[in-house]
Amino acid sequence: MSAQQTYTVLSGGVGGAKLVLGLQEVLRNEQLDVIANTGDDFRHLGLTICPDIDTLLYTLSGNANPETGWGRRDERWVFMETLEQLGGETWFRLGDRDLATHITRQALLDSGLTLSEVTRQLATALRVDTRIHPMSDDPLRTRVVTADGELEFQDYFVRQRAEPVATGIHFAGADGAAMAPGAAAALTSADNAAIIISPSNPWLSIAPILAVPGLQSTLLNSSAPTIAVSPVVAGKAIKGPTAKLMRELGVRDGVLGIAEHYAGIIDALIIDRQDAEYEEAIKALGLRVGITDTVMKDLSDKTALAQFVIEFAATVAGRARGAA
Amino acid sequence: MSAQQTYTVLSGGVGGAKLVLGLQEVLRNEQLDVIANTGDDFRHLGLTICPDIDTLLYTLSGNANPETGWGRRDERWVFMETLEQLGGETWFRLGDRDLATHITRQALLDSGLTLSEVTRQLATALRVDTRIHPMSDDPLRTRVVTADGELEFQDYFVRQRAEPVATGIHFAGADGAAMAPGAAAALTSADNAAIIISPSNPWLSIAPILAVPGLQSTLLNSSAPTIAVSPVVAGKAIKGPTAKLMRELGVRDGVLGIAEHYAGIIDALIIDRQDAEYEEAIKALGLRVGITDTVMKDLSDKTALAQFVIEFAATVAGRARGAA
Repeated sequence: MSAQQTYTVLSGGVGGAKLVLGLQEVLRNEQLDVIANTGDDFRHLGLTICPDIDTLLYTLSGNANPETGWGRRDERWVFMETLEQLGGETWFRLGDRDLATHITRQALLDSGLTLSEVTRQLATALRVDTRIHPMSDDPLRTRVVTADGELEFQDYFVRQRAEPVATGIHFAGADGAAMAPGAAAALTSADNAAIIISPSNPWLSIAPILAVPGLQSTLLNSSAPTIAVSPVVAGKAIKGPTAKLMRELGVRDGVLGIAEHYAGIIDALIIDRQDAEYEEAIKALGLRVGITDTVMKDLSDKTALAQFVIEFAATVAGRARGAA
Repeated sequence: MSAQQTYTVLSGGVGGAKLVLGLQEVLRNEQLDVIANTGDDFRHLGLTICPDIDTLLYTLSGNANPETGWGRRDERWVFMETLEQLGGETWFRLGDRDLATHITRQALLDSGLTLSEVTRQLATALRVDTRIHPMSDDPLRTRVVTADGELEFQDYFVRQRAEPVATGIHFAGADGAAMAPGAAAALTSADNAAIIISPSNPWLSIAPILAVPGLQSTLLNSSAPTIAVSPVVAGKAIKGPTAKLMRELGVRDGVLGIAEHYAGIIDALIIDRQDAEYEEAIKALGLRVGITDTVMKDLSDKTALAQFVIEFAATVAGRARGAA
């Protein structure tokens, strides 16, 4: 790859952040832009919480908690314990260290900075050079439609542990949301070698990003290929409620369901060796297929997958868009 | 004393809270109203901090930190440590436990409750039965006038450690502030046996309370006697910058300076045995004088002083107002 090339990743939280960490290791930092899902953001206890941006910030700065998949390592819970004694809401766990991020973010937002600017300041403070852009500086909120009505995302996901049956997903505020400047710049950069859709939940973490007006068309108009990494391996989601949600939404099981969902948006799909049998069926959808080990348990798994994504992207890059 | 009698205390932080704790021990809780100074309140990191209300809440609930005189016991500082790593403002120390109070308060204020209502909820959560009323639900902010201009109170007191030379005190927003309902009700209650001015700093902690429009006249119109406990013993302030401030403001040194300041507002002044020599000079100002041990080091000191104040008040109560 040339020194001028940049890579733009669409990412949600845990699964996406793992691949981004691998890419950060493999690429020089100045070559990596991440467009983060902010559909999960919410206001809690007076603070603006941005779970996916924070997972990215913590993962890329080496501060992530490896056991929980969210929050910070070496976390303490004295604030939460005291809040409980005061009768406060404790269903969303805010650690003593994590809280410093939310308080700092809210103070900066209150001072008039955009979420993009605040995210940049937090990244600088945490010595993260990878550019993390919120998908939008405007509120676009993911809501899960259930038989009992629409649920705020964190209510569904954290408070109710993704147990309610989902019948649909709604992105509240999508009409009024604009792409964040950094997200737009990354997607339209002439240096872009590839747009990578990380192995985050396509319906809960990637769809909100694509729901930002203009974002999907900008992606489709890019001369760079768009390559997704399947979040599903051997019919199971690596993390989170993806498999359950796919059943509830009536989507075809496994990587084929992922391929069908992304067909028309991506040029290629990277799937796990365990799903190699689906290669021809995915190709029949007009997609290039990359096959490798996609389960990321340690840093070497992450960098190996990142290296594969980059090398595979170079083989897709030459294809004319219309061939997809 | 009769079961119907109530006592109303004007109080700042540390010194005042000690006497209030003694009174809480001696009296039944339902007989005790505290009007707290909120002139020190400020907005910090997006949170409304009420130092004197919190010192009262923590002292009366047994959660005060006996070493610092502010904040909570068994405090932890992981939030502050992490905030520092993020480049946040750390000159005002917010402990992990203390933070739960500020976050809860801000969330309740944001939900539309008044500071009086929020304070009541916090008191209930901390199982404090003594009624703590902010002097006002409106912002009235103490500013210290110095040669370099006006300083916000916490900037002067905490950040600059009360080192700048004060040339005056200004209560910003006093014109637009109304007495809090609970404060007004306590001062006008027919059951009021005495109004007690706690041994807090008269210029920094009590003057803001008296600056709330209507409060001082309500106090003067009460049929109950007003009795102050001197915060100065043997020419020295027990706590804080009182003595330094008195010199800078050109006030007479020692208890006589306190007596002269409060003359016209109070009916009686309680002074320490070490200041007994000033009894006649204070009486010459038209004030009754009570003499006892006023230094409160342990709980028995506090209850002994509280008991003295109550018994002394009964002897002042019979006096016609005009005699003061």
